[in-house]
This record gives sequence, structure tokens and C-alpha cells, in this order.
Amino acid sequence: MSSNTVCASIITIGDELLIGQVIDTNSAFIAQELNKIGVPVKKRVAVGDVWDDIWNSLNEESKHANIILITGGLGPTADDITKPLLCKYFNGKMVMHQPTLDHVNYLFEYVFKRPMPLLDRNKKQAEVPDVCTVLKNEKGTAPGMLFEKNGTIFIAMPGVPHEMKWLMQNQIIPIIIQKFKTAFIEHRTLLTAGIGESFLAEKIKTFEEALPTNFKLAYLPNYGMVRLRLSAIGNNKEALQTSMHQYFSSLKNYVKDVMIADEDISMQTIVGKLLKEKNKTVATAESCTGGYISHLLTTIPGSSDYYEGSIISYSYNIKEEVLKVPHETLTQYGAVSEETVKTMVQNLITIMNTDYGIAVSGIMGPGGETPDKPVGTAWIAVADKKKIITRRFHFRFDREKNIELTAVNALNLLRQLIVDNH
Amino acid sequence: MSSNTVCASIITIGDELLIGQVIDTNSAFIAQELNKIGVPVKKRVAVGDVWDDIWNSLNEESKHANIILITGGLGPTADDITKPLLCKYFNGKMVMHQPTLDHVNYLFEYVFKRPMPLLDRNKKQAEVPDVCTVLKNEKGTAPGMLFEKNGTIFIAMPGVPHEMKWLMQNQIIPIIIQKFKTAFIEHRTLLTAGIGESFLAEKIKTFEEALPTNFKLAYLPNYGMVRLRLSAIGNNKEALQTSMHQYFSSLKNYVKDVMIADEDISMQTIVGKLLKEKNKTVATAESCTGGYISHLLTTIPGSSDYYEGSIISYSYNIKEEVLKVPHETLTQYGAVSEETVKTMVQNLITIMNTDYGIAVSGIMGPGGETPDKPVGTAWIAVADKKKIITRRFHFRFDREKNIELTAVNALNLLRQLIVDNH
Repeated sequence: MSSNTVCASIITIGDELLIGQVIDTNSAFIAQELNKIGVPVKKRVAVGDVWDDIWNSLNEESKHANIILITGGLGPTADDITKPLLCKYFNGKMVMHQPTLDHVNYLFEYVFKRPMPLLDRNKKQAEVPDVCTVLKNEKGTAPGMLFEKNGTIFIAMPGVPHEMKWLMQNQIIPIIIQKFKTAFIEHRTLLTAGIGESFLAEKIKTFEEALPTNFKLAYLPNYGMVRLRLSAIGNNKEALQTSMHQYFSSLKNYVKDVMIADEDISMQTIVGKLLKEKNKTVATAESCTGGYISHLLTTIPGSSDYYEGSIISYSYNIKEEVLKVPHETLTQYGAVSEETVKTMVQNLITIMNTDYGIAVSGIMGPGGETPDKPVGTAWIAVADKKKIITRRFHFRFDREKNIELTAVNALNLLRQLIVDNH
Repeated sequence: MSSNTVCASIITIGDELLIGQVIDTNSAFIAQELNKIGVPVKKRVAVGDVWDDIWNSLNEESKHANIILITGGLGPTADDITKPLLCKYFNGKMVMHQPTLDHVNYLFEYVFKRPMPLLDRNKKQAEVPDVCTVLKNEKGTAPGMLFEKNGTIFIAMPGVPHEMKWLMQNQIIPIIIQKFKTAFIEHRTLLTAGIGESFLAEKIKTFEEALPTNFKLAYLPNYGMVRLRLSAIGNNKEALQTSMHQYFSSLKNYVKDVMIADEDISMQTIVGKLLKEKNKTVATAESCTGGYISHLLTTIPGSSDYYEGSIISYSYNIKEEVLKVPHETLTQYGAVSEETVKTMVQNLITIMNTDYGIAVSGIMGPGGETPDKPVGTAWIAVADKKKIITRRFHFRFDREKNIELTAVNALNLLRQLIVDNH
């Protein structure tokens, strides 16, 4: 992609990021928001709550970026040093900001409903360097702060995700749009299943080699599926959208036999859309996934239109008592067997009175394997009122990943059944 | 904390990190592994698949770190440029590495079981710069590569998490231990509930102010709970462990009335441990959380010892038919009501025959609110065979976060009930 005069760096601050105690989700959100308005992110940096390291990264990042977004270290406790550091970095002095103090008082009285009186350290949240523009943080006590130096803007936000998100969307993005003339960036993503990254690359080699220089293609493999992301940058919005439309259509044509969605959506969203479109309902009977399929389906707003419920039968007892799997089936074939998931899914559809059903049973590890059923074995059944499809999988990962893979593959089998039915 | 001669930087490579399409979990894992062996991470950097940006970050990071760990960009497709770049950066030339080629062949034939013949781009995975030490990657086709320059080591790993994890634990950590004399780092974390960060800080002010300079205290608020992490660094392992033990015991004493665990564990682990210890069982009846509580409980290996199963009653129908909530209760009080969750939990314990039960019903958003039940309203009931405790919450976040908060608070209420019972 060609370079662009406006570009951003993200600096996240906190020791917890460097000892691996928390996973940094803020950077991804900030990057997404910037991308939407055509601001490319050049670099992301995480440093600890260490004076010199923060100071040096401000110096370094301002060499190649003119928008620097900073999160973390604005809390009321002693480990939070971002605010005094920024004050010194921009040669300011700390002053009480009355509108922020009023807001802190308001939050404690009416939102947090804390019976205790405001502490000095809570009041200190309302102190800001006199050289910044204060950005009101409706969601918390630490305000955003904007500094400028040699045409570069530095914006500090709290690291609490929902506060940072609110500030980005309501305060910071409008400021950036107003201050900078940004280029346009377009991304389109499609999702393939059933083909490896290398074979997919071979399939679209001609397409990829013919891409103009302002286009870029990326392969993002995950869960045995590969996402293809096409990105383009340019100064004329309409021309960019037209050529993106052409290239993306061409790409779709190249992969049409393996494509399962022409947008960057999750498997549960694909399945949810299909069910809603066809006005059908679904339920799940889960053993080894312990409710994870149900959780995935219900993360989608409006899923109550097509999702009825689930029976999570972790124990033999619940399989027999609630799902009515015959005792003989369980003792003869075992809980992890084709016969068991078949009975589970059939009875589920009857109990829940749904159009479709999913049943899974497996051994997710680390313990529980038997000679013929190693860790990672999963039996999946999907069914409607007329047909049952079963499949055995063997995943080779840790417990968490095995659960995820079982869930996504179960949803993919259901997707295939729904598509084949229509 | 005092400085240390050995320190690491992590460079993650991939455009997807800079447009926010994926969340970087690799860095956290790498940081954790390094910390365990006393290697502090000074900085984490993410750059795109852009030649100059990768090159510059290698230059920059080698200024302040002597261990540089790199992930990403080693795949077989055109967007992956890390390997040729490293080859050039260290003045090498690409050569075929026969043991790796044999391994690639083995993987395709016996593990992936691909019927298709090996492509040139698959074979290329076995080419490496002649100036690196090849680190065998048992889990995938791209090997790890170790380079050395002026006493600094640079190690490149694939970005696929389970491949990176295997390489870190089996190849890289042993190399670092052998090559560097590292200082010792100790971390201890405890978990508090029911007190805000500021008030907690006030409570332990005396303790915090008296900490020696090689100690550091961090506050990590999340889900209405606050984790306190005490870290220390030193050259004498035994002396460090002794003083950590003393300070951590003292800290525990300061917060004993609000501490719910003296280690860094999740709420589901705390609840699981309690149930296992007391030899009790649990089941859940979930409406608004859609199986998420069940999922959290079953992420713990061995949870089948105490977790029996769940009924996810997303629709009215399942609440009535499976959980036997009387039609009148639902019409008179609504699905989101104290009466409904009470009946849900009572019937659940009977159906599942467990010692404890959790029931939740709420409105997670964005839609579905009523005048007296705004988005974020959740009724939670926890019970044993003799007692039911109910509580109404009002969360003010997005759907995903509201689901998480409902689940964690439900588990916390159960924890309290179990603790109060004994």
C-alpha cells in the first residue's frame, strides 16, 4: 500500500501488559476505529508503568506518527504515572479542573451510589495539566486529555475498556476527522472453509499477482477456516470504492466453491442469519462443549428469534434423565459415540420442539481419554426433523481450543445442513 | 523495580494487528513465559507486514533489549515477508533445510492427511537463512529461527498460537535459560470483591508506602473486583522468596475482610475449588446468559466432578416445558423477575438433583427493554436445598459485557452461599 501523510501510533501503558497478566484488547478497538476513518496505524507499542520507558516511547512514536493515542495509567493509585508524566513532557503544571470535579462528584453520588465521602485521591482524578484540552469522560472519573506539539496530537485515555471506547467514539474520532485530511481505506473480507491456506493461495495466484499496488491481500487462517482480507488505500473515495467492488467481486468468483460468507462475520452470525432468513429455530444438546455453542449463538443480539434453548448434559445422569438417552446406549457405546449424539439430537428436537438441533459429546482433555478415544475426540450430530448427519472429529489442541473447534465445527455442520435443505 | 541486565522485547508482525482484526494474545503468553524465568519484558511492539517497519523495529528494539522475540509473517503466502527480511537483515542466503523438509512431508502425509501433492510453496516453508539456528516446530510447517548479533539474540516464531506456544515452551525457554544469567522475579496476586480501587488503596496506604524499592504494587480492577499484584525483583532467589512471603502475608492481613482468593484465579476456579473441596454439585438454569455460566464452569479441567449440567431456557416455552415455571408466574411477573428465577432455581435443583443451583434471567441488550426493566437488568438466584438468595443487578454496558458481568456475579453469589454454609 502506498504511504499516507496521516498516520497513528498506539501506546498502551501498564505493567500487566508486560507480564502477560491481561490481554490487550484496547489496541484492536482503537485500530478499528481509526481504520474506519482512513487513518492507518503504523505501530502499536506497550510499555510498563515506568517513567523512562513511557517518555522514550512518546519521543520515538512522534518521529513517525502525527496522531498518538495513549491508554492506561490514569487511575487514582500510586502505580498510575501517565498524567504527571504527560504534564512534565509538555511543560505544564497540574490544576484542578472544576467541570471534571463536578462530574466526579456526580458519578459518586448518582451512578456509583457510594455512601462513603469522596477521598482526596478521587478528587485528584479531576486535576489535569494546564497545557491540555480536557475531553469529558462520561463513563468514568479520569478525563481524556489532548496535547499538541509540532503538529502532532497526543491523546491520553483511561485503560478501562468501556471508558476508552466511549471516549474514542464520542470525543476523539470527531476531533481527528476535523483536524486531519485523511486518505480513504477500504477493507473487504470473505470467509472460506474446507481448504488450507497454501491451496487457497494457489487457487487465487493469478488474481493476487494482478492486484494494483494500492491493494493488499491477507490470509487469516483460524479454526480450519481461512479469511481473505482485501485492503486498498486512495485519495478518491468513489474511485476507491468502485475498484474495491470490482476486485472483490473478482476474488469472490475465484473462491466461490469454498466461500461461506462474503463479509467478516463469525460462524454463529452466519448460522443466525440463515435461521432468521428461513424462519427456523434451533436448540443444542451439549456435553463436552459445556454450553459454549449456546453461548456463541446467544452473543448475537436478536438470537431469541431463532434460538430456543439448550440442555447441557455434562453427567451421564442428565443425559439419561433429561435427554432420555437409554441407559443401554450409554453403557454399550459410551457417552462419546455416534449412537449417543444421534439419540441426544433426536430427543432434543422433540423436547425443545425446534426445526434444527445440534448435539456434541467428546473428550476435551487434558484427562479422560480411553484407548480408542484419545483426547480431542468429538462426535457431532446435526439434525432436522427428517435427517441426521453425524461426524467424528479429532482435535489436537488444549482443552480451551478443543472446545472452540468442536463448537465452530458443529455450527458449520448445521450451516451445511440448512444450506443443503434449501 | 531496579533494572536488570537481561531484558526482552516482543515484536509481533501482521497487518491484522494494526487494523484491529485480531486481538494479540501471543504477546501475553510470551511475556508470561519470560517472566517465569526472570526475564523482564521491556516493550511490546506490533508492526504491519511492511518491510521498513519491521526492519526499523529490529534496529530499535535491539538498542534496549538483548532478547528479541518475533512472531508472525512466516506463512506460505505472499503477505508473509518476515523470513526473507530476517535473511537480509543478518546477511544470509536462503537454503533448503532437509530435516525441516522431511518434517513438512511428514505433517502433510500423516497429520494433515492431505490427499493433494505438496506444493512448491509448502516446500518453501523448509527454506531458511543459512545464518540461523533452526528450531524444530513439531506443531507446524514453519520452523523457529534463532539469529545472534552483538550478544543479542533474535528468535522468530510463527504467529499461529499453538505453534508459538509449543516453540516457546519446548525450544526457546531452555535456550534463554542456558544463554543468560537471569535475575529472579516473583509475583503474587490476590483478589478482592466489594470494594472500589480508591477505597482499597486507602485501606493499604501504610503498607504500600513502606514497600522496599525492589517491590511494586499494582491494582487491576475488573468485573467489580480488584486484583492486587505484588511484584519483586532480586538476585538472591531465596532471600527474594522470603521477603515476598512476608510482604504478601502482611498485604493479606490488610485486606482480609475483602479478599476472596490469595492467588490469581478466576471466579469459576474459586467456585470449582470450593465445590470439589466440599464434595458438592451444581447445575445452572440460564436465560439471558445463554450458557455462558455453564461454559465458564466447564473450562476448568475436572469440572465433571462437581458440574452436572444446565438447562438454557431462552424461550418462554422452555422455561415452562422443561423448567416447569408456571405459566401464571411468567405472565404475572414476567420472565425477568424475582419470582421466575426463584422457581427456575428450585425446579432446577430437583430436576438435576444437585446440591446447589444458579438461575439467571435478564435483558442484556441492545433491544428488549421495558419501562420498568431497562437494558442491563438481571435477576440472579442461587440456592441449595434449604435456602434461596436472590439479587437484582443493573449493568450499564454492551451485550457481551453485560453477559459476562451477570455470569461472574452469579458465580460470586454462589461462592458466598457456599462459604456461608460452612
